[in-house]
Amino acid sequence: MSEVRRDIVTDTWVIIDTENDVVPQGVPDQPGKQTDCPFCEGNEQRTPNEIFAIRESSSANQPGWKVRVIPNIYPILQVEGNLLKTGVGVYDMVSGIGANEVIVESPRHTPHFFELSDEQVRLVLQAYRIRIEDLHKDNRLRYILIFKNHGSAAGGSLIDHPHTDLIALPATPVRVKQKLSGAREYFSYKERCLFCDIIQQEVDMGDRLVFQSDHFAVITPFASRFPFELLVIPRKHQFSYTLIDPDQIDDLARVLKRVFHVMYLTLNDPPYNLVLNDSPNLLPKHNYWTTINDDFHWHIEIIPRMDRRTGFELGTGFYINRFAPERAASVLREHL
Amino acid sequence: MSEVRRDIVTDTWVIIDTENDVVPQGVPDQPGKQTDCPFCEGNEQRTPNEIFAIRESSSANQPGWKVRVIPNIYPILQVEGNLLKTGVGVYDMVSGIGANEVIVESPRHTPHFFELSDEQVRLVLQAYRIRIEDLHKDNRLRYILIFKNHGSAAGGSLIDHPHTDLIALPATPVRVKQKLSGAREYFSYKERCLFCDIIQQEVDMGDRLVFQSDHFAVITPFASRFPFELLVIPRKHQFSYTLIDPDQIDDLARVLKRVFHVMYLTLNDPPYNLVLNDSPNLLPKHNYWTTINDDFHWHIEIIPRMDRRTGFELGTGFYINRFAPERAASVLREHL
Repeated sequence: MSEVRRDIVTDTWVIIDTENDVVPQGVPDQPGKQTDCPFCEGNEQRTPNEIFAIRESSSANQPGWKVRVIPNIYPILQVEGNLLKTGVGVYDMVSGIGANEVIVESPRHTPHFFELSDEQVRLVLQAYRIRIEDLHKDNRLRYILIFKNHGSAAGGSLIDHPHTDLIALPATPVRVKQKLSGAREYFSYKERCLFCDIIQQEVDMGDRLVFQSDHFAVITPFASRFPFELLVIPRKHQFSYTLIDPDQIDDLARVLKRVFHVMYLTLNDPPYNLVLNDSPNLLPKHNYWTTINDDFHWHIEIIPRMDRRTGFELGTGFYINRFAPERAASVLREHL
Repeated sequence: MSEVRRDIVTDTWVIIDTENDVVPQGVPDQPGKQTDCPFCEGNEQRTPNEIFAIRESSSANQPGWKVRVIPNIYPILQVEGNLLKTGVGVYDMVSGIGANEVIVESPRHTPHFFELSDEQVRLVLQAYRIRIEDLHKDNRLRYILIFKNHGSAAGGSLIDHPHTDLIALPATPVRVKQKLSGAREYFSYKERCLFCDIIQQEVDMGDRLVFQSDHFAVITPFASRFPFELLVIPRKHQFSYTLIDPDQIDDLARVLKRVFHVMYLTLNDPPYNLVLNDSPNLLPKHNYWTTINDDFHWHIEIIPRMDRRTGFELGTGFYINRFAPERAASVLREHL
């Protein structure tokens, strides 16, 4: 009937229905009728000035770019100002300092990530690294989050031009803290990286392994919170995305295109979120480098959003997943 | 522009937009055309046999009841069996033991909770207490969760007959653990209940207080994760819902009806979740009674679901709330 599984990294429990074999299907949004897109090449004047771009010879805010990074036009955090920490009675707050950026993934209006060329995806992955490195220099910031929302059910915006969101935060998010402390506890007990051990076990067992490439493993996690949740993780130990090398970037571009294409085919273009789980901003004064180097291991979570979260999940942080990850991996392998 | 606020209980951070004053509105589901409802009086044979009912003289599974508790027809956990804990390499799991119940709130098909009579809501609240007490006797279970999903965007079922869900779990959920440990840390430092201090502060400050009754306070939390999130909390210290007395039940029935009516009027019948946050199942052998008695304080969370969670929230446990709780309290007070 069901199993109750614990996610060893975050101490989250998931009830997994191990019998259901009806593959859930996305309900795609109506195809974009947007003919007048501010992210398309030629419309640079309709966005705020670019923060960064990969381009050959043209000048800033002009056509000729490959990947373009701009401020979010509706920022929820502002870049300027001092980071003030205040108490309000028993409560704590900090000022709304941070960064809100949009990484436009292509000059052309291509609705699906997997339709971009390998070269184009490589440039996008390089832009991720460059933006994270740049924002790491700002010591008001604690965490740089890179994520994608595809489809309205996943919180995607009205603009279906391919893009990635970036938010830089002045406090470390609770889920990141859970992951760091789960990994740290395991390391202090075993003196081995938890994620390296997970990769080893998944490759050995094979039933939750979707595929491996030269540098990455694609896995449906043991305690998947969502049907067809995926983990894309570098096979070698690497604590921060900023350490990714050119060979890994080449490989990751192909891996992500393959993953999104097989999801599209198997699940009928599902809404999804992609989240890059990186180390937090390093604080040299706390000597964090050495600790994190040993006990964290960056990875990408891909979460199809084909069902709704109820009061149960909101109230508990406990999840119900009605499609077992072993079955999900098997379905995906058939369509590779 | 915005403030980044910390929820002192769970260590969750929320970015609050302090300027937006556009009140979000629900998009109600189409009114129920269900003429043939298994929860209506007279259709008792179409559900599994009742576990419990409040009825005067009629016999079980016959018409004449006021509140009826039945097993969920699609249980995700099963009641029978031993609780087995297993390791799978680095992972942990327990067998899918637990309870899945539905508390049918009225013999009649009334779409809105606030349309029930005061007396009917009192009986529903009594049924909550009776079911929790009964399930506490089962030492395989760790946590009894009572919740309501109203509207499809909140994960509500197709059956719009008023009902509450109950799930009894074999492991303590991570959000409950966060709340317990947040409250315990505060207590060990201050020797006072964190929730009692929050009530005191909110009543003194007043800007997030929606209203007070004889026994309850209704508050928009300082670090509300969702626009118009509400906290309904007993004014006197009480660590478990099972200790609620008849006067409090009378009062809570009126308070909840008032809250749902004002939400209906102000937010256009929004989808919402209600979650009863109670103490976990007590384990006498661990001497939990005394600890919990001091440092937890039961409460009800009500969460309107007018926006979608994106990869940002899923990846971080950090939230963005585009309507400040002080404004929400003020809007609700105007409509009381």
